[in-house]
Amino acid sequence: MSLPRIAVDAMGGDEGVRVMVEGAALARRRHDQFKFLLVGDEKRIAAALDTHPGMRGASEILHCEDVVGGDEKPTQALRRAKTTSMGLTVNAVKQGEAGAAVSAGNTGALMAMSKLALRTLPGIDRPALAALMPTLGDNDVIMLDLGANTEADARNLVQFAIMGAAYSRIVTGLAEPRVRLLNIGTEETKGTDALRVAAAQLQAATGLALSFDGFVESDKINRGEVDVVVTDGFSGNIALKAIEGAARFVTDLLRSAFTSSLRSKIGFLVSRPATELLRHHLDPNNHNGAVFLGLNGVVVKSHGSASAAGVANAVTVAARLLEEDLTHRISADLAELGEARLRASNGNGGAK
Amino acid sequence: MSLPRIAVDAMGGDEGVRVMVEGAALARRRHDQFKFLLVGDEKRIAAALDTHPGMRGASEILHCEDVVGGDEKPTQALRRAKTTSMGLTVNAVKQGEAGAAVSAGNTGALMAMSKLALRTLPGIDRPALAALMPTLGDNDVIMLDLGANTEADARNLVQFAIMGAAYSRIVTGLAEPRVRLLNIGTEETKGTDALRVAAAQLQAATGLALSFDGFVESDKINRGEVDVVVTDGFSGNIALKAIEGAARFVTDLLRSAFTSSLRSKIGFLVSRPATELLRHHLDPNNHNGAVFLGLNGVVVKSHGSASAAGVANAVTVAARLLEEDLTHRISADLAELGEARLRASNGNGGAK
Repeated sequence: MSLPRIAVDAMGGDEGVRVMVEGAALARRRHDQFKFLLVGDEKRIAAALDTHPGMRGASEILHCEDVVGGDEKPTQALRRAKTTSMGLTVNAVKQGEAGAAVSAGNTGALMAMSKLALRTLPGIDRPALAALMPTLGDNDVIMLDLGANTEADARNLVQFAIMGAAYSRIVTGLAEPRVRLLNIGTEETKGTDALRVAAAQLQAATGLALSFDGFVESDKINRGEVDVVVTDGFSGNIALKAIEGAARFVTDLLRSAFTSSLRSKIGFLVSRPATELLRHHLDPNNHNGAVFLGLNGVVVKSHGSASAAGVANAVTVAARLLEEDLTHRISADLAELGEARLRASNGNGGAK
Repeated sequence: MSLPRIAVDAMGGDEGVRVMVEGAALARRRHDQFKFLLVGDEKRIAAALDTHPGMRGASEILHCEDVVGGDEKPTQALRRAKTTSMGLTVNAVKQGEAGAAVSAGNTGALMAMSKLALRTLPGIDRPALAALMPTLGDNDVIMLDLGANTEADARNLVQFAIMGAAYSRIVTGLAEPRVRLLNIGTEETKGTDALRVAAAQLQAATGLALSFDGFVESDKINRGEVDVVVTDGFSGNIALKAIEGAARFVTDLLRSAFTSSLRSKIGFLVSRPATELLRHHLDPNNHNGAVFLGLNGVVVKSHGSASAAGVANAVTVAARLLEEDLTHRISADLAELGEARLRASNGNGGAK
């Protein structure tokens, strides 16, 4: 079976066409079966393709001139869903002209357009934005929601847990990823009502392909002891950016410490392979590509400031989720949860 | 004017009496006017004092045997406010037998006991927990609330801003600390209703000794561009622990990178002064001492795992807030806000 092509919004991102096309080309160098629908200004895309001859035959261009602005309100952008590169990229997935969409544009607008065009999966009330982060362990950790929903009730959190676990199974290969709810303590009494109710429901659920074990605090996210961290979009966004900011803070301090004396400058040069390793491990481009989970289709958000290598990662994430049929996996898990509830309401919920 | 003595819960913290007494002694070595009321098991405190002869004449022991457990629920601990070392430490401030209280025990219990014994200041609905964090700039940043209130409405947030600014003026010496509300974006439309309403109120307020300029995202907390970060206790706790966890994650990665080869081990040895500088800058003990703001009295929470140096910092924070009359400063600012509101409701709010 050949992989459906990937629609790429060539106009999104801080640097636009050049980086998006170069990123797609880079991804294709590693996976030569990738095919693309490149959406945006035809001339600029064609010019960018000139420097990547291998991409020519693997790409079709869908021309449009309108672009969603970085600061534009989602409601405003939504009105131009039929004319903007972002809107047409998402629409290609809806029409079956592409299997997945990648955009580095305005997150809120991408969310709104994706929701409107692709709709949420049956059983999902709200999609969530999920991303991978590095850990001290062997596997990356997935955190969701990262900002698609400012608030989330218990029902949303349970759905996020199921969606996050499905994503984690694909990237880690684990049969039952370790899922935790983000909270300000691990005791049962901690946090909001929504968290406590969601914890009780996940604790009671049977038949789900995940291992739930209560709460995790935000200082443990990157220890490698948890595979999926579930939270509302406000707290998730706060935690993600706090981690990014603190990592940058420490590496900035390290840089200024290393340049504070001749001796430490020499030490830096000698230990360069070590600090390069660290830099590589922390480079956000290596973890680029946040996924909107819970839609009838795969939509991946590339960071606005991602490099071509970062875009290549986002494209590869989209292809992988398409190939592994993420959407269908989530639906199957939701059906399982629904049946478990039915069994429970028929009075034999205790029977596994 | 001699400083009122400081009540220290000698039984709190992971290591208990020895570290608490050593911490107090260390603080006194830097400020020899400090006097203490040490609350807890008389024999163990006396034994600890034996190794710090200078402390003898500066300390009185208040004996008690009961101790609040680390995992105890606040409501449960509250019933033993009259018999536990934590309860008696706080009570000493209420009775005027000490000017400030320091404890390394259970945070929730300390909050509940402090609130009950000391009550909130007129005009403050809820106290908040505030702490200092290092930045890339010249001054530390203050963040509050860090977990005293799982939720906060606009009115609470405005009060937190005023309390945080009063604290910041004392530690930074700035006349108008830069105050921001923690949010998931800097645009006016971002976040919860409570945040938007609080921002509008702080924007409109005049005569406050602070400079308010909207929202800050959590990746900017430690950049040195903000002096006070205001948030609800849930998000604040998530952000604080995420920063602590990420800093530890990066330094752990750095350690394993440095030990990955002989070359990098040598580099590490050569650049040791640089990495020591980093370690010192990030050592939580150097920023130990979270303050409960908004009470009729000074209560400082030392981290449960703080070293003697950390406890000494917490004691010094308590002494400083006492000396600079934090409580009175907050009251004065609240009165100013009240008068500004009055002026506004009389129709001349624009006149400064």
